[in-house]
Amino acid sequence: MNYRAVFNIIGKVLVIVAVFMCPALIISLCLKENGGAVAFLISVVLCVAIGLPLARLKPKRADIYAREGFVTVGLAWIFVSLLGALPFLISGAIPNYIDCVFETVSGFTTTGATIIGDVECLPRGILYWRSFTHWLGGMGVLVFLLILNPLSDKNTGEGMHLLRAESPGIKASKLVPRMKDSAKILYLIYIALTVLEFVLLVVGRMPLLDALCLSFGTAGTGGFGVLNDSVASYSPYCQWVITVFMLLFGVNFNVYFLLLIRKFRNALKNEELIVFASIVGASIAVISVNIFRQYSGVGETLRAAAFQVASIISTTGFSTVDFDQWPQLSRTILVALMFCGACAGSTGGGAKVIRIIISFKSARRSIYKIMHPNSVRIIHVDGERIDDETVSAVGAYMLAYFIITAAAILLISLDGMNFETNFTAVAACLNNIGPGLGGVGPVENYSAFSWFSKLVLTLSMLIGRLEIYPILLLFTTSVWRKIQR
Amino acid sequence: MNYRAVFNIIGKVLVIVAVFMCPALIISLCLKENGGAVAFLISVVLCVAIGLPLARLKPKRADIYAREGFVTVGLAWIFVSLLGALPFLISGAIPNYIDCVFETVSGFTTTGATIIGDVECLPRGILYWRSFTHWLGGMGVLVFLLILNPLSDKNTGEGMHLLRAESPGIKASKLVPRMKDSAKILYLIYIALTVLEFVLLVVGRMPLLDALCLSFGTAGTGGFGVLNDSVASYSPYCQWVITVFMLLFGVNFNVYFLLLIRKFRNALKNEELIVFASIVGASIAVISVNIFRQYSGVGETLRAAAFQVASIISTTGFSTVDFDQWPQLSRTILVALMFCGACAGSTGGGAKVIRIIISFKSARRSIYKIMHPNSVRIIHVDGERIDDETVSAVGAYMLAYFIITAAAILLISLDGMNFETNFTAVAACLNNIGPGLGGVGPVENYSAFSWFSKLVLTLSMLIGRLEIYPILLLFTTSVWRKIQR
Repeated sequence: MNYRAVFNIIGKVLVIVAVFMCPALIISLCLKENGGAVAFLISVVLCVAIGLPLARLKPKRADIYAREGFVTVGLAWIFVSLLGALPFLISGAIPNYIDCVFETVSGFTTTGATIIGDVECLPRGILYWRSFTHWLGGMGVLVFLLILNPLSDKNTGEGMHLLRAESPGIKASKLVPRMKDSAKILYLIYIALTVLEFVLLVVGRMPLLDALCLSFGTAGTGGFGVLNDSVASYSPYCQWVITVFMLLFGVNFNVYFLLLIRKFRNALKNEELIVFASIVGASIAVISVNIFRQYSGVGETLRAAAFQVASIISTTGFSTVDFDQWPQLSRTILVALMFCGACAGSTGGGAKVIRIIISFKSARRSIYKIMHPNSVRIIHVDGERIDDETVSAVGAYMLAYFIITAAAILLISLDGMNFETNFTAVAACLNNIGPGLGGVGPVENYSAFSWFSKLVLTLSMLIGRLEIYPILLLFTTSVWRKIQR
Repeated sequence: MNYRAVFNIIGKVLVIVAVFMCPALIISLCLKENGGAVAFLISVVLCVAIGLPLARLKPKRADIYAREGFVTVGLAWIFVSLLGALPFLISGAIPNYIDCVFETVSGFTTTGATIIGDVECLPRGILYWRSFTHWLGGMGVLVFLLILNPLSDKNTGEGMHLLRAESPGIKASKLVPRMKDSAKILYLIYIALTVLEFVLLVVGRMPLLDALCLSFGTAGTGGFGVLNDSVASYSPYCQWVITVFMLLFGVNFNVYFLLLIRKFRNALKNEELIVFASIVGASIAVISVNIFRQYSGVGETLRAAAFQVASIISTTGFSTVDFDQWPQLSRTILVALMFCGACAGSTGGGAKVIRIIISFKSARRSIYKIMHPNSVRIIHVDGERIDDETVSAVGAYMLAYFIITAAAILLISLDGMNFETNFTAVAACLNNIGPGLGGVGPVENYSAFSWFSKLVLTLSMLIGRLEIYPILLLFTTSVWRKIQR
């Protein structure tokens, strides 16, 4: 293990986090929230104090391999979460450090699960930081580092390993040959869409800070709100804007890149996009019929259905209604959407639509194989051949995914909450959604769980955001062993 | 599709079912249950009337392929269920034909889910038949046919295809070179164990018919009881006997064969057996600690824990206590055991321990692959190499399994029952267990579901018992198309 290289990168990440804390510090100062300002100042100093020495470590060897890439990403996220939690603790917004870490991990992993019952009494600077963690975690803080890091020019392998470990999906593809440029393009698209949503919300007369926080929350598909009723009290116009942007941020960013370089046909023929759109459309239709009696008129019904479906499938987790009160069919559809999740290469979580597509095709192939035992049948997506290794990797991923789901449910069931609460709490955390059903429904929060369950759920959020392996590898003894090269 | 061969075999199966109905007819006559006797007489006549002409069909070609094997098994099970349901309908024991089919499929698939609230008022002949369906379905009616069918000597391929489609597990292995002898050995072990349990129960002063029915239920890992409180009111001795036999019938029968031919070391080193025993031991230990306060003394606690664990993991579904009242941790463990299931090559259902083992190893391999991207790592079970095709088949199977679980939960959620009830109802039916939690807990039954949900659950039971493909193939259009050979 190339420890120096690993900690060098982690150090740089911490410095970036410190820089990104400064706007929150400024906001706190402007609004004369002294407690918040002091908290951010101390946190910035601490991040720099720990990060800078690490960032100055000179790695003996420049090479980092897949193993180092995964370990770096896993450790970096843990460090960032532990330090990012400090403003909450120091400002006294959240008195308990485990709760602070839960809230911060929930932010960075774009989950949006909260342990805070009353968010409206929090200082505005803290609220800003809470929502900004979504934005930073959405595209990934290491991907951001790749834009700045001069190493990534000399050594594309390193950047690739980091990108692969931090980006969701079955394979990380570079948009353009240079790693740094790919990361830059991704972030530019990300910033452009965020700004567009912010402008549209401000046009809809949403207060500036609310619009900023909700844009961060939507962009990262996070889900932290600034009001206790999430998005329910904003105007229908604002709700529709957020609905559309939740879906937009759930789409593979490659699609936007293809649109930018005017490959319209390739962009719109994207199989994952088509399936994603179909699932969204079908879910909205069925739920609308199912919940029609609870709302007055087609417009309100459609808005409630569309908002909640977009929120859950994009794994954002905002809500405009208490969907826990919906009929069982609609609630069950939402649970299914939790596991499905958004597209690969988006900021959304969940298993990802592409994995569902490959799972379906692989199940269909196994039926075909029974009828034609000696046949060889290739799975195609977007007309491209998916090699057997990818198919079995997807299979192994899904199996690991279900094993982790079951294990987490078992562990938190020690608290004695009911099955629906436990099941959807794990589903909502592992898939980075936020609210579940029952005891963790949209009008409830996660404060009722024990510290042990909170730790399990915190780990679930990290496992979900980083797609299992970077976190799991940290617990594998053989990772830390020396390998003969 | 070689239709003649398919229907020829189905005809023979129906005649066998008619023969097996005769003991129930005789019992009804002896006990002077006239309604029951008439019902069985009509059913026997109908089975013979439909079965005999089919059995006399002369196939033009003797060859049957994998496709025909699966279709035969799927159709045969549906025919047997539709006709096996007749005694319930004609005797008036269950007034509704859909309920009759539900109960019969639940019997043959060894699920043990019932729509009958009060079983004690049923005629004894009907109770006998209800439990006997477990015994017949446990080892498989087509496997029984292989013992008699002269075709299987000439054409081992045919027998192999049938055995593969009807027997649970990742691969059907013949114990001895001749198909017919393999089937015979399996049934002899099966009969010997059943008789042994029957004798032990009678020694424990259980009434003869009760002992017979419960032995059938245990042997098939079914779970239909003859008393309303399942096994709760029998003596502790009888409960322990049933506990041990539920576990014995959950073990791969190959192990018994190895013991018979004195390969003790091979038998006891069986990896699946060791994992199965470990899961059982660990579950009993954790649950005992968890439920200790609800029972008086170590003996009662251990008995309750051991019985329920054995009942659920072997997918039998008897109960001695209302485990729905247990603390959440114990209830969740039971739900996890539902999906795990028994060993391959046993009469139990569920995903099977061997698939869990391979899933774990495949997930572990994918972690290893990340560290060593160019490595080739082979998965071994029992020291034998599991080829990649089997590993991906297991992956595809598990994915199909979870997709079906989700679809069934969605469909039955139309009824508006709560999530726990829907989730565990599907888990209990698909994994052939019987009782679930909540609305389908051990003191409840399935009568509250709509006819549509009952059909979905009936199909789930068949899909679970036949391990997905034989039933799914029936709904695949390409199966019915002609293939160019």
